[in-house]
Formats: sequence, C-alpha cells, structure tokens
Amino acid sequence: MIKIGIVGGTGYTGVELLRLLATHPEAHVEIITSRSEEGVRVADMYPNLRGHYDDLAFSVPDTAALGRCDVVFFATPHGVAHALAAELLATGTRIIDLSADFRLRDADVWAKWYGQPHGAPELLGEAVYGLPEVNREAIRGARLIAVPGCYPTSVQLGLIPLLEAGLARTDNLIADCKSGVSGAGRGAKVSSLFGETTESMKAYGVAGHRHLPEISQGLQRAAGAEVGLTFVPHLTPMIRGIHSTLYAQVPDHSVDLQKLFAERYANEPFVDVMPAGSHPETRSVRGANVCRLAVHRPQGGDLVVVLSVIDNLVKGASGQAIQNMNIALGLDERMGLAHPALMP
Amino acid sequence: MIKIGIVGGTGYTGVELLRLLATHPEAHVEIITSRSEEGVRVADMYPNLRGHYDDLAFSVPDTAALGRCDVVFFATPHGVAHALAAELLATGTRIIDLSADFRLRDADVWAKWYGQPHGAPELLGEAVYGLPEVNREAIRGARLIAVPGCYPTSVQLGLIPLLEAGLARTDNLIADCKSGVSGAGRGAKVSSLFGETTESMKAYGVAGHRHLPEISQGLQRAAGAEVGLTFVPHLTPMIRGIHSTLYAQVPDHSVDLQKLFAERYANEPFVDVMPAGSHPETRSVRGANVCRLAVHRPQGGDLVVVLSVIDNLVKGASGQAIQNMNIALGLDERMGLAHPALMP
Amino acid sequence: MIKIGIVGGTGYTGVELLRLLATHPEAHVEIITSRSEEGVRVADMYPNLRGHYDDLAFSVPDTAALGRCDVVFFATPHGVAHALAAELLATGTRIIDLSADFRLRDADVWAKWYGQPHGAPELLGEAVYGLPEVNREAIRGARLIAVPGCYPTSVQLGLIPLLEAGLARTDNLIADCKSGVSGAGRGAKVSSLFGETTESMKAYGVAGHRHLPEISQGLQRAAGAEVGLTFVPHLTPMIRGIHSTLYAQVPDHSVDLQKLFAERYANEPFVDVMPAGSHPETRSVRGANVCRLAVHRPQGGDLVVVLSVIDNLVKGASGQAIQNMNIALGLDERMGLAHPALMP
Amino acid sequence: MIKIGIVGGTGYTGVELLRLLATHPEAHVEIITSRSEEGVRVADMYPNLRGHYDDLAFSVPDTAALGRCDVVFFATPHGVAHALAAELLATGTRIIDLSADFRLRDADVWAKWYGQPHGAPELLGEAVYGLPEVNREAIRGARLIAVPGCYPTSVQLGLIPLLEAGLARTDNLIADCKSGVSGAGRGAKVSSLFGETTESMKAYGVAGHRHLPEISQGLQRAAGAEVGLTFVPHLTPMIRGIHSTLYAQVPDHSVDLQKLFAERYANEPFVDVMPAGSHPETRSVRGANVCRLAVHRPQGGDLVVVLSVIDNLVKGASGQAIQNMNIALGLDERMGLAHPALMP
Repeated sequence: MIKIGIVGGTGYTGVELLRLLATHPEAHVEIITSRSEEGVRVADMYPNLRGHYDDLAFSVPDTAALGRCDVVFFATPHGVAHALAAELLATGTRIIDLSADFRLRDADVWAKWYGQPHGAPELLGEAVYGLPEVNREAIRGARLIAVPGCYPTSVQLGLIPLLEAGLARTDNLIADCKSGVSGAGRGAKVSSLFGETTESMKAYGVAGHRHLPEISQGLQRAAGAEVGLTFVPHLTPMIRGIHSTLYAQVPDHSVDLQKLFAERYANEPFVDVMPAGSHPETRSVRGANVCRLAVHRPQGGDLVVVLSVIDNLVKGASGQAIQNMNIALGLDERMGLAHPALMP
Repeated sequence: MIKIGIVGGTGYTGVELLRLLATHPEAHVEIITSRSEEGVRVADMYPNLRGHYDDLAFSVPDTAALGRCDVVFFATPHGVAHALAAELLATGTRIIDLSADFRLRDADVWAKWYGQPHGAPELLGEAVYGLPEVNREAIRGARLIAVPGCYPTSVQLGLIPLLEAGLARTDNLIADCKSGVSGAGRGAKVSSLFGETTESMKAYGVAGHRHLPEISQGLQRAAGAEVGLTFVPHLTPMIRGIHSTLYAQVPDHSVDLQKLFAERYANEPFVDVMPAGSHPETRSVRGANVCRLAVHRPQGGDLVVVLSVIDNLVKGASGQAIQNMNIALGLDERMGLAHPALMP
Repeated sequence: MIKIGIVGGTGYTGVELLRLLATHPEAHVEIITSRSEEGVRVADMYPNLRGHYDDLAFSVPDTAALGRCDVVFFATPHGVAHALAAELLATGTRIIDLSADFRLRDADVWAKWYGQPHGAPELLGEAVYGLPEVNREAIRGARLIAVPGCYPTSVQLGLIPLLEAGLARTDNLIADCKSGVSGAGRGAKVSSLFGETTESMKAYGVAGHRHLPEISQGLQRAAGAEVGLTFVPHLTPMIRGIHSTLYAQVPDHSVDLQKLFAERYANEPFVDVMPAGSHPETRSVRGANVCRLAVHRPQGGDLVVVLSVIDNLVKGASGQAIQNMNIALGLDERMGLAHPALMP
Repeated sequence: MIKIGIVGGTGYTGVELLRLLATHPEAHVEIITSRSEEGVRVADMYPNLRGHYDDLAFSVPDTAALGRCDVVFFATPHGVAHALAAELLATGTRIIDLSADFRLRDADVWAKWYGQPHGAPELLGEAVYGLPEVNREAIRGARLIAVPGCYPTSVQLGLIPLLEAGLARTDNLIADCKSGVSGAGRGAKVSSLFGETTESMKAYGVAGHRHLPEISQGLQRAAGAEVGLTFVPHLTPMIRGIHSTLYAQVPDHSVDLQKLFAERYANEPFVDVMPAGSHPETRSVRGANVCRLAVHRPQGGDLVVVLSVIDNLVKGASGQAIQNMNIALGLDERMGLAHPALMP
C-alpha cells in the first residue's frame, strides 16, 4: 500500500481527497494534519466518512512523520508548501501540491499575483505542472507536482487543441467561466453564505484573478506564442462544477474541429469530447474526474465556442491530484477514479 | 381606473403581471383568460395572490369583453397575438404583447426563426418595440407594443451606449448570458425539472436561439450598421435573473466609459449604472424592474466587458410591460414599479 | 412622516426593514446604526436599495439622535436592547425590538436560556409581546414592543385556535419546524455556508432551542394551563420561509376545525386560513407579511395536523415589526405591507 | 459475471442502478428496456455514464431475453412487475422489484391504495420484503424481492428498535418526513419543475400517502401489534435525501436508548447509529447506501425523537436493490456499495 500524508485536510479539497482515496485500492492515508483541529477524528468532522476512516484524526504537522509517507498532498493555502517542501523532499517523499505554490514558472509573476515573495524559487526547476494531458511524461517519477487550478484545468483543456494546431488567433481569447461556490473554499466568509449566493449569479474579479497568469502560461506553452486572454469568472449557485465557455477566433474554416478535438484527446482517459452539437452539463461530471468538451462554430462564423465542464473539486483539484499520483508512481492512471458522476 | 385584460395568464409572466398590478394604484384587472383553466380562480392557482384577486377567475378568451378593456396584455405563446391583434385593435383597446409576435421588424426573419409564416405582417408598421430606453417617444400613445424579450433587454441595455457612440467594433460582439430556469416557462418539460436543473450549469442553443435576431436588430439600430453577434445562453440553477456578460472591442482608450454609461442612462428610472469596479448580482434586481450595469476594461486592453443584470420576469417581461403601459397612457413611468428588489 | 431609527441594521432583519419601509407611505428612515460599518452607505452594502436610500449611511449609535425618532427598531443580537432601552424610552420614543430581549415575561427564564442575567427586568412590566393576533389592544399606544421570534409566530398562530377553544390535549404538543437558512442570520459561520447547507436537510437543537420557552409561554397563555411541547427545528436549503407542521391530540371529533380556524382569524388581515385539504407552500408567503394555515385530521384519527407557513424575515420579523408600528401609532395596520408574495 | 436486466430504465432509479452497477465487480448489465427510448444509448440519455456503458442501448422488453439474465430489476411504475413477474420467474431468473407491486402482503390493501386490482396475488406468498435489516435470511436465495420504498426504509429503520423492544406506545407514532424532489420521479410534471419547488417547502398527501400502508405493515411486524401512525411527507428543495423525524412515546426512562440502537444495528453494514446528541444531515449519505440514525429524548420527557436520513435513490431504492441482489446471490453484501457519500 502507498502511504499517504495530507497536509491541511480540513477544507473541501482535503475531504475530497479522503473521499476518493477511500476506494483507491493501493492507497492508505496515514496522516492528515490540521493545527486547528488537532485530535478531532476526520469522521467526526466529515460524517460522510464514518465507517471509512474511523481511526484517523487530525494531527499537528510533523515533518518527520510526513517524511515516512510515500506521497504527501498539500491541501493548504498558498505559502505553506513553499515553507515545507524542501525539507520534505529531502526525506525522499513525493509532494503533490494542490495549492498555487508551484504552478507558475516565474517566481516574480507569482510574487506579483500573491502579494508576497515566492518562498521556494529554488524548487521551481524541479516542479512539474501536473496537467497530465500535457505533461504526462514529466509527471512520471516526478517528486514535486503542482496540481493545476480548477479554472486553469477547464480552460486549458478546452483551448489547447486549437492553440497547439495553430488555428486560433492568440491575441483575443476569452474565457467566460462559471464556478460553483465550493471553489471559494470552506472558510467562514459572508460572501459564501447560502443567503448571499443562492438564487443569484454574479461575475467577480473581472479586473484580475489569480488564475489568469496560470491560464496564460499554459495557453502560451500550447500556442508557442504570447496570448491575450480575457478571463471573467462568475459565481454560480451550485456546490460543485465549473462551466467554461471559451471564445476563440478561428479564421480557417477548412479544419474539422470535431475531429481535431477527438484526435487530440483520443487516448486521454479523463477527457470526453462529446458529439457535435452537444451542450455538456456540469452535473454530468459531479464527483467524477472527467472533463467533458464540446466544440461549436455558431452560424458558421469565425468565432469558435468551446464548452468545457469539470467538477472543480475532482478534475479541478483532488481527483487530478490522485491522477498525478497514479502516473508518478506508475500505477494505472484510472485507479480509484473510474466511477461515474452522480446524476441526478 | 385602467381596465386591464390579460390573455393567457397561467404562465410565469401572467402571474407576474398579476403580482405587480396588485399594487398599481391605477390598474384593475378585469379579465384573465385561459382555455385550460376556465373557471379556476387565479388565487387558487397562485396562492401568493390570495387576498388580492379573490373574485378573479380564468375565462375563455372573448374578444368583445377584451375589447372593453383599456389595455390587453398578451402573455401567450407565439402566434396567439398574431391571430387576435387586428380584431382587438379595431375595438380601440391597446395591446401590450409580451410574446415575440411583433418584436422583429421583418416578417421573413420572424418566419425563419419561428418556423411558420408571420400571422399579421400588416400590423408590423404600427407595432412599437417597447424598449423605453430607446423608444420612449414612440411608445407614448402607441396602440400595439411588442415588449422585448428577456435576453434582448439585458444585452441591448448593456451594449447600446458603446454602439450609439460608435466606439465598439461591430463585427465581433459576444453576449454570454446566464438565465434562471423560469425563462423556460411553466410548461411541464423534463428539461425544466428540479432534478434536471439544480446544481448544474449548461449552455444551450449555441447553434442559434430565437432571441438572436431580436438582439441583432436592436444592436444594428444602435450602431447604424450591421453587427456580428455571438450569443450563448446558459441555464443557471436559480428561478429568476439574467446575467449577461458582454464583450466588445473598444480600441479607443481615450473615452471615459464609466461616464459614457452614466450619461446615457442619467434620466432612466430603471437603469442603474453601478460604480466603477462593480459586479452586479442578479439578486439585487429580484422582483424589481431594474437593469443594473457595470463596465470594465480588464488589464487595460481593447476588450471591454459589460455586466448587465435584470430579473427576466420583471424588466425582462412583465415589469417592462407595465412600464410600457404607464408610458403609453401618460402615467408616471414608475407607477407600481417603485419597490426595491427582494434580497436576500 | 414618522421618523424611524434602526439600531443594528447590517443583518437580514435590518435590510428587510429597509426594503419594506422603502414603500411605506408614512415612514422615513432617519438613522441606521452599525459600529462596524460606520460611514458605509446602506445602498453600497445592499445594492437592492440603490435608488431608495441614496443618502442613508450607517452611523455609530447615538442615543440623543435616536431619541429624536418617533420609533426605534432594534435589529440587534440579544442584550443590546436591554442596555439601551431605558435611556431611549426616557426620550419619549417608542421601541420595537426584533431581538429576544423582552419576549419572555420571566427574567429568570430569559437568563437560563440566554446564559446571562436579564439586563432590564424593570421594563418587563411595560413590554408588550407584539403578536397582533393575540395582543392587538395592548399594542395600541405601547412604548416597548417585543416582536415575536420567527418560529414562535408560526407555531403560535397554528396552535392557538385549538388551545383557546380547549380542544387540544396540552401535555403532548409537537412542533416540527423547517426554516430557511436566513434564520441563522448573516454572520460568517461555516455552518451557514452554501456548501454546507444546500442540497441537505438536518434537524438541530433537538435538546433545546431558545425559541422553546417563548413558544411555551404563548401556548400556555392561550391554553390557560401548562403545556408540554416538543419543538424540533430543521435547517432547510432555502433562503426564506418557515414551515411548521404541528401535531395536537384533539379527541373531540364533533368540532368543525376548518370553521374554528376560519372564525378565529376572520378579521385578521395577515392570517390566511386556506381551504380544507390545502398544503400551504412557503413560497406563497415569500416577501409577504402573511401566515397561511391549513388544518387536517388524517385518517379521521385523534391527531390533528396544522400546517403553518410564514416568511421568517417578514411575518417572522421585520414585517411583523412594521405591523406593530402601524398598530401602535394608530395607522392602517396593513400600511406598507399589502403587496403579494413573490412567486415563483 | 452476473447477467443483469433492467426493465424500465429511463427514470431516476434506473440511472442510479446503472451508476452503482458500473463499479460493481461482479455485475454486467446485459439489457435495459424502455419502449419510449428504444434504440437510444443510455450514455446519450445520461451523459454521466459516457465511458461506462457505451454499447448499451434501450430495447423493447423481451421476456425471453430477460429470462437469460441472472437478475432482473424492475424500475417501473406500479403494475408492470405484476404483469411480467410470473412469466419471468418461470425462466429461472430472479426478480428484484423496485416498484410497489409486491411490497404489501395483503392484495386488498394494495388494491385500495393503488386504485386497481392486484395483478399477481398468487406470487405474494413467495415475495420477500427486501429490508435486509429485518429479513436478511429470507432474502438469501429469494427469487422475488420487493425493495422497500424510500420513506418506508427511513421510517422503519428509525422505529423498529423501539418497537421490537416493546418500548414505544404503538397507538400514536408520528413520522414527519422530508424528501428531495427526485422522489417524485423524472416525469414531466408542473409540480416538479425547478420554478415550482426550489426555495420552498410544503407538506403533501397529509390525508393519505401510498407509503402509509407499507410503513404500517413493517411497524406492526416489529411491534407484534397494530400501530397507529400519522405520516406527513414534505417536499424539500433538494434533489436527493430523506430526513425522517420520528416521534414515539417511550414512558420507560430506564432503558439506555443509545445502547439499544447501537446494539440493534451493531452488525449492520449500512446502518450507522451516530453518537448521542447527533443531528444527521442528508448530505452525509448523498450517493451512499447508508441510513444514519440519532436518537434523542428532548428535555427528558416521555417523547423520544429519532432522526433518520437516507439517500432516497440509494438506500431508499437502487442501492438497497443491489444490497438485496448481493444477499440473494451469496455475494459480499457490501459489494459495489462501499464508497463514501459525496460531501460537499
């Protein structure tokens, strides 16, 4: 069995890791840390886990103990993995970081968007961006993996077929993204209250959102060129799900876009290119590690519309983290992630 | 008192007319028709109206009786107003049509999108498009008013300041719109069930939606030129509300867009230009006849993002219909429409 | 115009007072206080109020200024009205307290349930329990009114016809109550997050809830005897609404219960006894100052089931507060409260 | 592999069977029938199943083909299993019926509540009521299993410890039950629309609901006596979940109820007796085959309150059906049902 440690397990990505790992045949969670909940059993905090982790309780982070794990997931606010990564890597364990700490290649860009200096720039050379559909080979055997953000996963998977093929104009890409409220985390904030969010829709962060540089970095890699991206996230009254509606100018009408997408993802176990004319629903991926895509060219114009849905907590976070673990350790990539979505 | 008739009052726009007219000081609903619900009291079908319309029951449509009303609202599927309008107008009553029957100026375009011949093309010359912010003078005294659709209201109010000023490129406008489920009406359809719509988000009609030609017509009038518009509607898990996120290329950076919008709507009682940096929420207009707008230029680029929210059943339908009635009859435009939105 | 002050206006009952008072023809809000939001305009905090209170901003509580108001509403946590009431009453203003401070007649019972000594026991003799359907005469001219809690309003209105008539056994009453999440207030608590409350139902406070002694006090008054009540509140995934399902043993089958209820509330403007066989929905009172009731005797047994719905923020708080103000000041009781509920 | 047939697979219990069987290691769905959707691939109707059942399409019911299956599930309206059961049983297959056709022991009671004669009374002797916590031995090897209804599962599991122990008075039991909207099925009904059900709570069927005789039958078996039960179901704005709040008079205060429940279910893999003082949430069982229970004695009175939550589509239908299959076929009872609930 793979010995798993989880640092910072009280938030939504933490409980989702536990939910998914509960049925992973090769994984065993040895340690889960939380300073604030020390001593609390995870099943007391998350009753859905009763019967699954009856002996597991939150403990104070202990690098020596974590170092005895094969894999340590970080489900922490930014900055925490910076502080602990070097010491942990020295013990020989692998780190799969769900936070933003190692997603950006450029420490200065990170510092600008996160408002503090990058805490571990010396590790950026080793860190692998854990989007398997792009970086699978680098993930194999990697010791430090940065799991992509939820919006970035959804947007990149939708746009990279067009960009890698050189079909989309790169100066005017638009990502109009709609996220469920769990994307805001489990912190006690007025703006995340039921009474403030249900039965309402709003945009936020139009002037600039921290996922913008991460998305741009990924799109630029795919395009091999600078990209101009407008990213508008919206808060949607649902728990889980991201629906990205992506707009790109594709002046060349001779390409069969449906075929392009189907071929790009033909061997991807967790990307589903739906039939032409489809409108994927976020509920079709609820709880599942899948990105479903549909590509449209409305009224036969130059503008192509790609619809991309994921569960922000699964393919957008904890599921993708486990997918990375499976790849890094040489397991079947689908292990523990093969169940269908919960619908209705 | 103004004598009101309502044709087809069993749907959501019908009950919303009754809700709003219940507190309109000059209106009295004399007749409400429904073939399927003949004899049923409206307060038995809509218990929120108990105590307000205790003597009003649905009746079979009767042109003579409707003709004795001062104003007849049509809250019907398309085609019904076509069939009855000429006869009713001959009685001297006014018609305020909430359906799509008289919104498009071109009968051929109507026929193409609605899949049947236009039933009253001879009335198109008289019909006034009831968007007060554009057509207020024509509405005064009008006998036949076509109330704009919900999406078209939201999109036009958000884009016309840029188009009227000649600032936006007209060949590549995008309207990414999110609507609550009440926009699909009160018909018994699997796709509108709670179990099919809640906790999920999806686009629909990407290939073409009937509101597209109506929006294009309005934008072209504002721009004085052909426009290229991509319109992607989405179904959002909330009852009421439309959030339109509008994208337009505005290469001229010298104009103060906040000021432009504020001045365009300075005298409009039902358009609220929010302060720079705002993110309007649909709940801030729930139940109210208001469109709230915010204009952004993310990262100082050429692309301008306008956020526009309305309640699809109020400013997007029944409230705007009453606003048109008030204007047409020379009443205070705000009469019966001055209450704040319900929040939370 | 009546000069209104509101102490503690940042919560849900505060904004609901503002929403309802915005269309009250005789009321003008002069002052609204909040220490934490001093200087913030109410319309900036609550955008639904934009266009209604554009000059009103939160200010630090100032007894002298409040004393110049005709009526001061307290929309505060418990204890605040205790501290300020005596000084304010001395200025000649009236107090309408939406908190629990003056609801219980017995200061010791208050102290037991609220975990601190009662702060103003000397005012209990003057305080009037503001349930108009029971206490209307006492409310006229009252200077200090305790607005009933949301659960207590719903339960009392449903049970008092049976108790006043001496029909129900008093030793085994059950109130199974379901409340929307706004009942938990606007505080930043994990337990009120969207992600923690939507798509779920749970009971809470089964061992004892602070509304229990208030309900018992009211039922005992109606019965003229001690009552044994089991009260189980539940958290329901909706913003507004309380649905109380009330169970009482009524061994006498000779009484026409429908008639009993209809007659008890025949002259009540805000209690609607629905026809026999009805199942009132909370949405039928959303935003409206109404309690709708239905009475059932399933399978003709001894157990009678009363269904009682209110909007917890309106008839359960701010609307009832205004109803009290209207009565106390000799205005039409329905003033500002006559609009129908928002449905759908 | 066990060959599975599903009759009537287009509703919510049908898709839930498919979801759960997709990860059952011993099951393979050979046939799924639907007259209306003949030829449609299940993954086209239910996109959450894309990648899981790519070759499975709905077919017209064919008894010969179904007869070659090891197990046939009926996920049909009442009456269908009556018509087909005898013929199918003759082929040697087993039937697990999720409908109400074989739940009641008395054909006359069935006829009274379902408004038509019982279609297969000769099979009642063989039919086993599939509540494993009561009938496990009878289920082993059974050929015809009637899967309990959702409300009956939740109520029986909550009350039988008290009734089997002879502790509860049997003449005045109350089940106040709250169900998600999926309990009303996937039929196109106005009453199940999003716009009619969200943000609202109501009781229904207070005069009599078809699950009442099924619940009474089970409680009487447990009590060994007639029971008087009042059952009030409520429609709750959530997709999945039943929360039953159960009231029973337990005059004997000497018994440790927590211990009684814990011991009654000590060996039950799918009943979770939560710690004293708990308030189970329906979300803690979302998607999982678990019933969580908590027992309370508020204020130390005679009335005991039991809180019981299940997912109506899992432990209340399709999960319990698979649990029955596992038992009937001698498999590990937990096979395919061991995953945690989806939370948040």
